[in-house]
Parts: sequence; C-alpha cells; structure tokens
Amino acid sequence: MSDVIAPPAKVGDGVDDVDTPALLVDLDAFEANLKTMADRVATAGLRLRPHAKTHKCAAIARRQLALGAVGVCCQKVSEAEALVGAGVPDVLVSNEVIDPRKLDRLAILATGPARLAICVDSKDGIHALATSCERHQVRLDVLVEINVGSDRCGVESGEPALALAEAVAAAPSLRYAGLQAYHGRAQHLRDWRERQEAIAHSADGAARTRDLLAAHGLETGVISGGGTGSHPFELSSGVFTELQAGSYVFMDADYGRNLDQQGEARSIYRQSLFVLTQVMSLPGRGYAIVDAGLKALSFDSGMPLAPGGITYCRPSDEHGMLEVGAPGGRLRLGDKVRLIPGHCDPTVALYDWIVAFRGERVEEVWSVEARGARS
Amino acid sequence: MSDVIAPPAKVGDGVDDVDTPALLVDLDAFEANLKTMADRVATAGLRLRPHAKTHKCAAIARRQLALGAVGVCCQKVSEAEALVGAGVPDVLVSNEVIDPRKLDRLAILATGPARLAICVDSKDGIHALATSCERHQVRLDVLVEINVGSDRCGVESGEPALALAEAVAAAPSLRYAGLQAYHGRAQHLRDWRERQEAIAHSADGAARTRDLLAAHGLETGVISGGGTGSHPFELSSGVFTELQAGSYVFMDADYGRNLDQQGEARSIYRQSLFVLTQVMSLPGRGYAIVDAGLKALSFDSGMPLAPGGITYCRPSDEHGMLEVGAPGGRLRLGDKVRLIPGHCDPTVALYDWIVAFRGERVEEVWSVEARGARS
Repeated sequence: MSDVIAPPAKVGDGVDDVDTPALLVDLDAFEANLKTMADRVATAGLRLRPHAKTHKCAAIARRQLALGAVGVCCQKVSEAEALVGAGVPDVLVSNEVIDPRKLDRLAILATGPARLAICVDSKDGIHALATSCERHQVRLDVLVEINVGSDRCGVESGEPALALAEAVAAAPSLRYAGLQAYHGRAQHLRDWRERQEAIAHSADGAARTRDLLAAHGLETGVISGGGTGSHPFELSSGVFTELQAGSYVFMDADYGRNLDQQGEARSIYRQSLFVLTQVMSLPGRGYAIVDAGLKALSFDSGMPLAPGGITYCRPSDEHGMLEVGAPGGRLRLGDKVRLIPGHCDPTVALYDWIVAFRGERVEEVWSVEARGARS
Repeated sequence: MSDVIAPPAKVGDGVDDVDTPALLVDLDAFEANLKTMADRVATAGLRLRPHAKTHKCAAIARRQLALGAVGVCCQKVSEAEALVGAGVPDVLVSNEVIDPRKLDRLAILATGPARLAICVDSKDGIHALATSCERHQVRLDVLVEINVGSDRCGVESGEPALALAEAVAAAPSLRYAGLQAYHGRAQHLRDWRERQEAIAHSADGAARTRDLLAAHGLETGVISGGGTGSHPFELSSGVFTELQAGSYVFMDADYGRNLDQQGEARSIYRQSLFVLTQVMSLPGRGYAIVDAGLKALSFDSGMPLAPGGITYCRPSDEHGMLEVGAPGGRLRLGDKVRLIPGHCDPTVALYDWIVAFRGERVEEVWSVEARGARS
C-alpha cells in the first residue's frame, strides 16, 4: 500500500521554514484571482464551472463554489471520485471515457448525492456509457463534444454532432444536456487578436450546431468551454453559457507570456503558485544548485522563472541550476527561492500538498486529493 | 490527509485489462537487465549500488540486493526514509543535503538498523551534517563529492577535495568513507568514444584526488559513481570501486538513442518499462487520442515512442495524440497501447504503482514508496 505522505509545513510556520521542494500558494493573489473571475463571469451572465484538473484539490473547489461556481470540471473518473469523495457536489467530466470499468465507476459515483455529467464524441462511446448507466440504474447528463479548432477530441460541428445528440437523446439512461466546445490550442496563442479570431470561429461552430439541434427538437442545454487564455472571448460571445477556465487560480510562466489587447505580456490574474526550492550546493562555478528539478516541476512549457532576473537552467531529476554569475552571487547555501512553474497543471499533479500562505505565514495546508497519474 | 490510491491491476489480471494510464514492467526484460548488470559489475570486481531514484520502489531494491548489490543510492532524505522504512538496509544519499531539519531526519534514520551515508561538497554542509549527527548521537559515513565534468554539484578534485575530506575526518560524528565522482552529463553523450573520453577524464580526477588524500593519511574508501550510459568505462577504469547505475533496470527512449561501439543505437539492456494507455477518442482526423499526456509521462527528453512506427505527438494534460494516418487507421476505440517513456526516472515518479507482468499476465504489483515531489 502506498503510505500517506507528510505535509511539508503546518499552519503557522514561516514560509521560508517550509520543507523543500514544496508547492506554495499566495492566498492574497489566489483569492483576488478567484474573485476577479467570479465577477467577470457573473457580469457576463454565464455560469462558471472551473476546471479542477488545474488544482486537483477539494479545498480550492469549495472556495470556487462558495464564490458562485455551479460545479467543477475534471478530466478523469479518478479525479471525479476524489473530488466527490471530498464533498464536491457537481462534477462534469469534460472529456471522453471509453473503458467500461471506468464508466461503471462513474455510474456508481452517480448513484450518490453528487450530480455527474460527461462528454461523448462517438456512437461507441454513447453505447458504452448507456450500458454502464443502465447497469447501475442511473441517468447521466451528457454533453456532445464538438471540435472547434483544437483537432483533438470532439466530433465535427453541425450534422455529425446532431447524429450524436440524437443518439444520446434516444438512450433512456442518458439525458442530452448540451455541447462542449473547448479550444485548447487557442489558450496559448500569444496575440490577443489571434485568440479572439480563434474563439469567434469556435462560437460560430457552436451556435450553428445549437441551432441545428434546436431545429431537430433538441432543447438547447449548456454550451460549455473556454479557458484562462481565451475567456474574454467566450464571455462576450453570446453563445457560450458556461466557462471552464482553470489556470486563472494559479497562473504560470507560459500564461504570463500571453499578450493583452495592448500587446503587453500582462494579465489581470496574479501569479499565486510557486515552487519553493532550496540552494543545496554552491560550488562556485557561477551556479547555485537547487533541489527542484524534473520531479518537482513540469518542463513541457519551458523553464520555471526565478526571481530577480536569475535564470533557471539544466534541470536534472532532483536538481536545477540558477545562474548567479560571480562565485557566490547573491545566493547562499540554504537560501530558499520561489520559482514560477512553466506550466501549472502538470506541476501541481506532482505534489501531495499545497501550502497556502499569506504574508510570510502558512495559513492552510491543502491536500491534492486527485493528484498524479492515478487510473 | 492524502488517501491511499488503489492499484490499477491485481495479480493474475491480463495486461490489457490493466486500468490506464499505468506503469508496466516486463519482468523478463527487467530480470535480464538486473542479471546482466550484476554479472558485469561482479566480473569487473566492483560493488554495485544501484540508484533507487530511478524506481523509488523497495520491491525492486530488494531484487537488486538479492543479486549482490551492496545497497542502493537515493537522492533525497525522503527517499531514504521510504526505502529504509520498507526494509532496505543500506542507503547512500548520493547528493548534498543542507537543511538542518532534513539532516536531523537523516540522523534519526541512522539511529536505526540501516546503514546510511551521504555526500558533501562544502564546509558549511559538513558542519550542518556533523551538528545533526552529534545531536542524535550517530556517526555517519560521508563521501566527498568531486566535480568530474558535470559542473553541477561537487567540489573540484585535488586540493579542494582534500580540504573537505580533512574536515570530515576531523568531525567526531562523521567518518570519511571515500569519493563520489558521478558524471551525469556523460550519460547521454550519444557517441561511444565521447562517453569513453568523458569518463577517462572523470577517472583521472578521481585517481589524482584519491592519491593526494592517501598521501595525507586519508585511507582510500570507495570511489562511487557511474551511470547506465557510461558504466562500461567506470567498470574498466581501474579507479571506480562502486557503480551507481539506475536506469538499466527500465531503460527509456532517450537511452535507446545512445550509440554502441559499432555506432548503432543498440543496448545490452532491454526496454522493460512501458506506460499503458488507451485510445479514448478516434475523431477521424488522422489521430487516435490516448489517455496518457503530461501527467502520465515526462517530456524533458522528448516524446514517448509508440509501437509499430506510430508517432506520439501534441501531449496535453491528460491526452496524447497518435498519428494513425487514414481515418481509423490500425487502432480502434478502447485499444490499449504500450508507450516507451522518453525519460524513465521522472515518469516513474508520477505513479503510485508499478504493474509487473510476464507474458500477458500481471505477476506482481509494486508500490512506488518514494514517489513524487515529497519533501
């Protein structure tokens, strides 16, 4: 049995006393992000269903719900199980699931008090889902996922989506609940106008499909999608009814490179997530060696950012190197450094605990219930 | 509290019934690798101390010990705690640790029956270590790490190493036990001769330092180092006495690109590690979408390899895309595919369980006790 891993800090500790490597969240920035997004979505008249794959953490989901979120998204049945188990009452699996045993687990979860929903993009997927729901005597809400530009999952908009929606509606154990229209690739298009155009195209496809389905007697359900990089455009589209943004709670180095309307790399969301690391070797060759490497940070979106213009480079399993110039530089052995991860979601998935601090004190320690590559 | 995550399979299951994503080990290949390395090291007259950061798994460490390994290396105090807790009797922390609380934990661990040792590369590090050992009334074996070409941790060879070894020898709670001389960057030099030259240089630095220390009355302890990519050269060096290779148990796509003496990308170690993934969307645009992405594989050393010449591309958090050409291609919804990870160590650290199979049956399920970014 895998054992329970001790948290790296306790409430009341100083932030620089947190054991390394550790995931830190600056509560002032984090709470500002939650409020900014909740306000923007409410003002636009949409529902907010934040993506929990970013944080995998029930404590954060509960804060999002307290600020008006209608529920959360997640990407896997195991995430839904972990979050529902921790008290989250409404979860959309914003993804396709095809495995009968995973679908059975989802159907069993749906026999409890939480509301569950899921996406489909194939007739075989609908059949497998309906079979599991019948077996466990539950009726599940189903969104048909349409391809709105990412060319990943999702059926093409228009007629192919209609055929699937009709198949869902024809299955007694399923309820057609709307469309999923998420454009993942648009999130990191650097240029504001490029993102705007991409989402205009997404909204067109979704609206056309919605209208076609309505003409065939399928009631308009939700149109769910959007992310942190593109949400201004989903919010103003007049088409989307539900926003799935996730990363806004934390932000990361890669989102920090997105340009705003004025062409500036500047966001209304603040960086709240950091990896705390410690200088554990200072061999005097122009580098400080820290204890956060490939197992403490995700590198798919580039290097983490270090404070004070210091460059992080040459990660290995348990080491990173900070270019500090002249021997010693500004850093000393034992110093702790807060890195901004390149990509928040897969970095968070490496950790069992999030240490939430305000000022220089640890205020809460949250479990990352749904972490990792669990099945 | 983080809860115990259920394993994705049980003994006796068919391999294709394992829940996805999951880490698989082909026992025939794995056992051949363990035996090949054990035999080579024994023939060369060295001690084998395999690196457990690769597998983080006590079941594997025990198999290595059963084949003659003198103990294991690990990179962190938390790994040492997890492995000693699971019964591993001899652990070298082949790395510097500077934090007093981590050092206290190591000293406390050393009050138990297991033999612990650690590396140092600074006087401050020696002082901090000695303080913790005195506090807990233990005497720890200490290796002085020298820089042999990686320019990461480690003091320069020769006089600077002598100064540290003398400082270790002067501390009543420490015992000078030898040199650590690991050339990490040499492991993935593609060309055989380049690796050979790099290790010849490492061995020179280690031998020179050893002789200098002996001339100052410091008994020659172990000279420990080497990795999967470079071990033929450490074994034949006449200088190294202990080999720290780790990845040979699993191998990965990146090691698979190293060239042998004939210039061929070919290894005497077999690929035993796979990530099992499932096709969960087949939208008919030339791609099969699988459920192993950034949270199920490490991408620092490139893309994973898929069987049959299929290309894996465009990973996102929980998705990967397999280029299958014409709609449908050879893959169907629900099919399971075994991917070879780009880099084994950080991929294994994502998982709680390793599913060990022989032929097409699950034979054992191992806990990855020391996984993740734990402090």
